Amino acid sequence: MARSAAGESVLTRAMRILRSFTASSPTLTVSEIARRTNLPVTTAHRLVTELVELGALDRAEDGRVRMGHQLWEVASRSSRAQDLRQVAMPFMEDLQAVVRQHTQIGILEGTEVLYLERLSARGEAVANVARIAGRLPIHATSAGLVLLAFSPRELQEEVLAQHLPRYTGQTVTDPTELRRVLAQVRQEGFVVARQMITLGATGLAAPIRNDHDEVIAALSIVIPASDPNPRAHAPVLLATARGISRALGALPPTEETIRTRGPKPSR
Amino acid sequence: MARSAAGESVLTRAMRILRSFTASSPTLTVSEIARRTNLPVTTAHRLVTELVELGALDRAEDGRVRMGHQLWEVASRSSRAQDLRQVAMPFMEDLQAVVRQHTQIGILEGTEVLYLERLSARGEAVANVARIAGRLPIHATSAGLVLLAFSPRELQEEVLAQHLPRYTGQTVTDPTELRRVLAQVRQEGFVVARQMITLGATGLAAPIRNDHDEVIAALSIVIPASDPNPRAHAPVLLATARGISRALGALPPTEETIRTRGPKPSR
Repeated sequence: MARSAAGESVLTRAMRILRSFTASSPTLTVSEIARRTNLPVTTAHRLVTELVELGALDRAEDGRVRMGHQLWEVASRSSRAQDLRQVAMPFMEDLQAVVRQHTQIGILEGTEVLYLERLSARGEAVANVARIAGRLPIHATSAGLVLLAFSPRELQEEVLAQHLPRYTGQTVTDPTELRRVLAQVRQEGFVVARQMITLGATGLAAPIRNDHDEVIAALSIVIPASDPNPRAHAPVLLATARGISRALGALPPTEETIRTRGPKPSR
Repeated sequence: MARSAAGESVLTRAMRILRSFTASSPTLTVSEIARRTNLPVTTAHRLVTELVELGALDRAEDGRVRMGHQLWEVASRSSRAQDLRQVAMPFMEDLQAVVRQHTQIGILEGTEVLYLERLSARGEAVANVARIAGRLPIHATSAGLVLLAFSPRELQEEVLAQHLPRYTGQTVTDPTELRRVLAQVRQEGFVVARQMITLGATGLAAPIRNDHDEVIAALSIVIPASDPNPRAHAPVLLATARGISRALGALPPTEETIRTRGPKPSR
């Protein structure tokens, strides 16, 4: 493998260049890339030129570069994100049409939530910090709390051992309190996160399971914190999350039986 | 730049590995990758290992590899595809809710249509060969015909000079006939493509313009070919495409005036 004097491979450097683009800086000059990646300008220039030739980056008219359509195409067409999104979208649209609030789906990446999709009504919904392909902290979002509640104990302990940043007065940062929240999520099967990351916004999330009954994603909605009864949205959220899970092949046969027979009256 | 004996750089090979994944083959073994990329197995193995370390590929439980979430994240968060998609989505959802048929947005990549987004109702819509991050031929799709009609003359001549494959009896492959179709698209501002790529499906498409009044994408719907009056869908399609264009900053001031004053009764 070709490596620079610093022992870093060409691929590592190329990936660092790609990572230097963000939603807030979608176009960069080569000097900006060099600064952000700590690469010499000549090296950055050479790698950027090659990435442009390969279609991973595109050169804009003003000489700035940006992420290429081809890289998006390659990364999207066979990604699990796309698979899950494809299955979830019709359900998410139905949920969004009924609730008329942000509807989103997130997965766990490391100890953060990576949002795969977000549907928002035009000018009808509350402020929402989640972005598609954006990340948010696991302990301060409804999706994160669901993903953490159903993740392996080691990951939970890793997060609980971290210093957890406080975003609002409502962010749960105390490990003991967070343990209590996670236990409640497991018991109720959903979470209501009131203004934990943004004042004015309340998140509700429920788990999405795959055919091995593993929680692989969280479905969430963001509603105004002024909503007097956020828990009233839980049934439609839970039903939608179950619909997506079922479309992914989840749910044990007993539940299938309940579904085909209808709900048992005495339970 | 590090190059192999064949004169090919590490980045070129890495990109070829990434391109070997497709929607129909989302997971591959290293031997499959080596075969598809024509790389020696040891080289493929070394590069795959590094791409996994960098998060560009993920290793599945069975040892197969697939596109990594991180590459999708990097490619998505700052891509123009995502920008356009973000603006278009609320409009597309409204269109899809009304028409209840596949609603999609495509851009020109080379001489093909690259689909950025597709919304489909659950089990209500007709067969559709378009896939998100998938490509279809420019001359046989409604989106392609719109993109071609409004593209520079050189590109049109390039396409017209090609041998154009026939997919159904309705595919227009004759250059003279195709010129006529393109002229009609420019005149009417939309196209109806009846069963040109799939029997049973008719596409309608209209152009989306940016703030320089350039056609940068096509909005299309796919309806059953049995629909007795496909042109009846043109007004809602055109209005939606204009809405997206307007949100992108398009449309000359005269049109803005019409909008704010309401339609002129005598026109």
